[in-house]
Amino acid sequence: MSEQNTIQPSAQTVSEYLGIRSPKDVGAMPEKNIPALCQRLRRVLIDRTLQNGGHLASNLGVVELTVAIHRVFDAPTDHIVFDVGHQSYVHKLLTGRADAFDTLRMPGGISGFPRRDESEYDAFGTGHASTSLSAALGLAQAERLRGSDAYTVVVLGDGALTGGMIHEALNNCDRKLKLIIILNENEMSISKNVGHFAMLLTRLRTASGYLSTKSVLGKTLEHVPVLGKPVRKGLSQVKKGIKKVLYSNNYFEAMGLNYFGPADGNDERTVEQLLRSAKSKRGCSIIHLKTVKGKGYVPAETNPGDFHGLPKAGQKASAPTFSHVFGETLTQLARDNDKLCAITAAMPQGTGLSSFAAAHPSRFFDVGIAEEHAVTFAAGLAAGGYTPVVAIYSTFLQRSYDQIIHDVALQRLPVLFAIDRAGLNAADGLTHHGIFDVAFLSDVPGLEIIAPLTTDSLREHMQRLLSAPLTHSVAIRYPSGEDEGSLVDFYRCVKERAEGVFTDFDVQHPPKTIVVTYGRLTAAVLTAAESCGERPGILLLERLRPYGAVVDLLTELSARGVQKIVFCEEGILSGGEGMNLANALQARKDLASYPTIRILAIDAHERIPEPVTGQSAQDAAGIGVMDIIKAIQE
Amino acid sequence: MSEQNTIQPSAQTVSEYLGIRSPKDVGAMPEKNIPALCQRLRRVLIDRTLQNGGHLASNLGVVELTVAIHRVFDAPTDHIVFDVGHQSYVHKLLTGRADAFDTLRMPGGISGFPRRDESEYDAFGTGHASTSLSAALGLAQAERLRGSDAYTVVVLGDGALTGGMIHEALNNCDRKLKLIIILNENEMSISKNVGHFAMLLTRLRTASGYLSTKSVLGKTLEHVPVLGKPVRKGLSQVKKGIKKVLYSNNYFEAMGLNYFGPADGNDERTVEQLLRSAKSKRGCSIIHLKTVKGKGYVPAETNPGDFHGLPKAGQKASAPTFSHVFGETLTQLARDNDKLCAITAAMPQGTGLSSFAAAHPSRFFDVGIAEEHAVTFAAGLAAGGYTPVVAIYSTFLQRSYDQIIHDVALQRLPVLFAIDRAGLNAADGLTHHGIFDVAFLSDVPGLEIIAPLTTDSLREHMQRLLSAPLTHSVAIRYPSGEDEGSLVDFYRCVKERAEGVFTDFDVQHPPKTIVVTYGRLTAAVLTAAESCGERPGILLLERLRPYGAVVDLLTELSARGVQKIVFCEEGILSGGEGMNLANALQARKDLASYPTIRILAIDAHERIPEPVTGQSAQDAAGIGVMDIIKAIQE
Repeated sequence: MSEQNTIQPSAQTVSEYLGIRSPKDVGAMPEKNIPALCQRLRRVLIDRTLQNGGHLASNLGVVELTVAIHRVFDAPTDHIVFDVGHQSYVHKLLTGRADAFDTLRMPGGISGFPRRDESEYDAFGTGHASTSLSAALGLAQAERLRGSDAYTVVVLGDGALTGGMIHEALNNCDRKLKLIIILNENEMSISKNVGHFAMLLTRLRTASGYLSTKSVLGKTLEHVPVLGKPVRKGLSQVKKGIKKVLYSNNYFEAMGLNYFGPADGNDERTVEQLLRSAKSKRGCSIIHLKTVKGKGYVPAETNPGDFHGLPKAGQKASAPTFSHVFGETLTQLARDNDKLCAITAAMPQGTGLSSFAAAHPSRFFDVGIAEEHAVTFAAGLAAGGYTPVVAIYSTFLQRSYDQIIHDVALQRLPVLFAIDRAGLNAADGLTHHGIFDVAFLSDVPGLEIIAPLTTDSLREHMQRLLSAPLTHSVAIRYPSGEDEGSLVDFYRCVKERAEGVFTDFDVQHPPKTIVVTYGRLTAAVLTAAESCGERPGILLLERLRPYGAVVDLLTELSARGVQKIVFCEEGILSGGEGMNLANALQARKDLASYPTIRILAIDAHERIPEPVTGQSAQDAAGIGVMDIIKAIQE
Repeated sequence: MSEQNTIQPSAQTVSEYLGIRSPKDVGAMPEKNIPALCQRLRRVLIDRTLQNGGHLASNLGVVELTVAIHRVFDAPTDHIVFDVGHQSYVHKLLTGRADAFDTLRMPGGISGFPRRDESEYDAFGTGHASTSLSAALGLAQAERLRGSDAYTVVVLGDGALTGGMIHEALNNCDRKLKLIIILNENEMSISKNVGHFAMLLTRLRTASGYLSTKSVLGKTLEHVPVLGKPVRKGLSQVKKGIKKVLYSNNYFEAMGLNYFGPADGNDERTVEQLLRSAKSKRGCSIIHLKTVKGKGYVPAETNPGDFHGLPKAGQKASAPTFSHVFGETLTQLARDNDKLCAITAAMPQGTGLSSFAAAHPSRFFDVGIAEEHAVTFAAGLAAGGYTPVVAIYSTFLQRSYDQIIHDVALQRLPVLFAIDRAGLNAADGLTHHGIFDVAFLSDVPGLEIIAPLTTDSLREHMQRLLSAPLTHSVAIRYPSGEDEGSLVDFYRCVKERAEGVFTDFDVQHPPKTIVVTYGRLTAAVLTAAESCGERPGILLLERLRPYGAVVDLLTELSARGVQKIVFCEEGILSGGEGMNLANALQARKDLASYPTIRILAIDAHERIPEPVTGQSAQDAAGIGVMDIIKAIQE
């Protein structure tokens, strides 16, 4: 890498440095300049992602293929859809967003994922995995219906193949569509891919056998006529049979797709040629590319897992995170409890389960990006007498809503759900907030819901629940990151009044106003409480369901003169904890008068929170410190 | 079929007629008696299903394979899991439930689906499609972990392959497991199967090419040595290549499974032999069988779609059903609106879309049992400028919860969700109630929710929504079956006070008690209201979201002296309409005093309704007429 080519002079804008203002410039660029463009794109990616955080390794891998797409196709007339979408940074740099790229993942800045409302070049928003092909089929069918010639191009990582939706969509690929799928095999989703699809791809790729058999065999069959007539006849049938077998011997051809590749996806000219070939062919095509995740940045090439999602500079955790404590505790508990199993959906590192995988490999199951299967598989393990612990991020657990009801709850099977990244996750944006889980889990038959305030408390809850056989399903939800100091201190001061119900006031002589809250929002509630003239009492919940004990306590407090109860919640309003508790309290018939009730939660119907510059995610969600003060005082 | 063999003497119990008290008797039965057993099983199936309703054609198809399973495997030590589970009747007849079979699908009777709480022989409950293999993997891993020799057998229809979960599970089949999958290909799920998986199976089966190529080619290669040395060397590589190709040339082998078949699944001896072969082989196996849906009952063989799910005798609809009106209306609207598309997940008949498919084939998409794909595909069509209408049963739409949020709502794409079978569906049992949708859709950003009371109203809402371009997402939910007369009459008498808000009383001089309700439960509310001394007013909702207008009206009514508001809902409590409206009303600050509020809904946390003999589904759910009267009067 020659330094003068790659370092951006400070006076230059990023678009000037790249020489690209719009995708038209990519197409117009002389072929000989493309390698330098790719080099400069990598430099921008590395500089910016190390600063702002985000997805580095995956974007470094797709530089050439993204450039090639924009040279062969005419966006936004042609649609480009990225699966998961975290590998769309290069696309953003080439489609008019280079000079805003320093705001990547910042409040008010450009998103780390494609967004239809950010650019007409982002054909479809993607944040959760395996949705791209379904969306692309919709776009392509729309173009077919209107009789247009526009193409739809999908960029798909091999990890997405472990998700069922892709197969539902593959089953619906219609040869009449102008659809091209780029399968970007880097053998990683976030961690190493698992299962047969990964092996199938490797086999297709490494089997030089595959391509060479085709040609060798063709030649061999030409020799057939020298054999006698009966053999010739037999072989002519064989020829048909072989042809059939050869031309349908991979999954994608069986799905009716033209298959191109495997080829080096970091060779821009090759990718361009394959794209042009696919474009010229009738029917849907899949182009199988092999790329190197982290390409061009040695630390990321060597350890792509560590460079998948980077935190913002200076934000590296120092204390153990909730994920880490979860993983370590489970690993320890599994030493004494040989029934404990752990399941992750392609997130062994993210969920803290790497240590479990190392210590108890036979009871560790990474099922791929397959949240639905993960939950029903857990139900099967439970039916078989084992105790499954399923660790999934809150936002991705939405995928398993039906399985949680149908396979776990209706059969009253004991499964422990470890729900990571609960609450707001602003840096990843709209698609990654974990704000629906309390609501959608609240009426799941027989499910207990726990929200530990600190990592110590998480450990204790796990020890309590998993030291004896689990008798019912439990969801434990906790945020990303590590303990907040103020909460650790606060947790030491509160008194447990019933299982999982704590107060920081004397329940015999309660203050006039009580704030009920749980989880990380408690820190904002504490700050708000200190700012109020008459300090309200804080009732901390760690057990959200069942809530009989807290309703009893609230009834008792109301009888003792509490005049106002404010529920504060980092989750959605409808069906959330506040709404449920308020309803249960009002259904009590043993009160002469009812306190005023105010619920402060996220009204997703009105807005999903997106902070602007200088704003916290909680402020943007309408549940920040000032909102809490207002709710207490009004 | 000789009559004396097949008609059951009235003095005999079903188990005496079959000669089977437990699966042990199946294994002990001399081989020569098996055909007669199968014939008798068919007779019982036909008699009982024509009487009680239920799934006839699918069960007739699996008689021999179910008998074979019980002869080769040792249930309940070995586990048998049925996908969807509606083809488990034969299994029930063979596992101690023959004499209770006349209670099939009756209140308090045996379920039409496998139930763990019904029998130890039902290894896993299944009602929704494509879950079986995930559950079976859990059971099989549990057996592996405890070092047992027990087998897990999965019975899978080919329709289930269109669902993504099966592929997530296939990707996780571990060769160390004692797992045998029976793929029962009958080319139907409920309607005809669609897509590439169906074609792939047909190809595997019809390609006598597949099996014969294998043997012909083996012989042909033996001739190779007569050719010269270089050719011989080339061919020896080819041989390897061909072997590789032949032995991995189907999807299942690529997934690491031993593949057996295709074979005639209605030939009991063949199935038994294949099961024994699979059992003797290391690793997981898949046995591909072809069966005839409806086998042995001419009307069902000829028209299996009509004999998929039968209504109870005498319950055939006379007036047009909601599904029918939906389908007809959409077909008509699509004549003038060439942007309208219809999507179904393997339910063209059930959702009433057959007429649309015939009239507008290019805009009709049956995507298979793939609810997740259906919704994201719809989002793609919407992004492409078309207006997709996705028709899915309420209970199955739970599968799409994440896609509704992530792909439709967060991008504010206009999709119309037609939610059929909303509310209680007791005959199909626990797994088929449509009671979660209002709650799980209530906080989906920007979603309007409509619950038309009558089929006429359904038609009018559709006409209003779809005559102009759809600007936002809307869910229309309606029950199974046809209009109830009392509701058609009632609907004529009420007055619309705001869009989708109706009353049967004078809002200037309201009664002291108001009952707020929607949908089919309105009939019970009407009956209850007539039984109360002072008749309460009824406020009928057709528009559940947004609810600003109804909260305004309730506030106004409260100011005019309404003292009590009772919300009655055929849906879950948490996050349902009642809880949301009660909360919104209490958040109003313009009231001097608040009415008493009572919410009568289904507390799924406490119980999912299952009626016992003589009880209605609403009674069982705690929302029957008597419950409503009590809520009004207490």
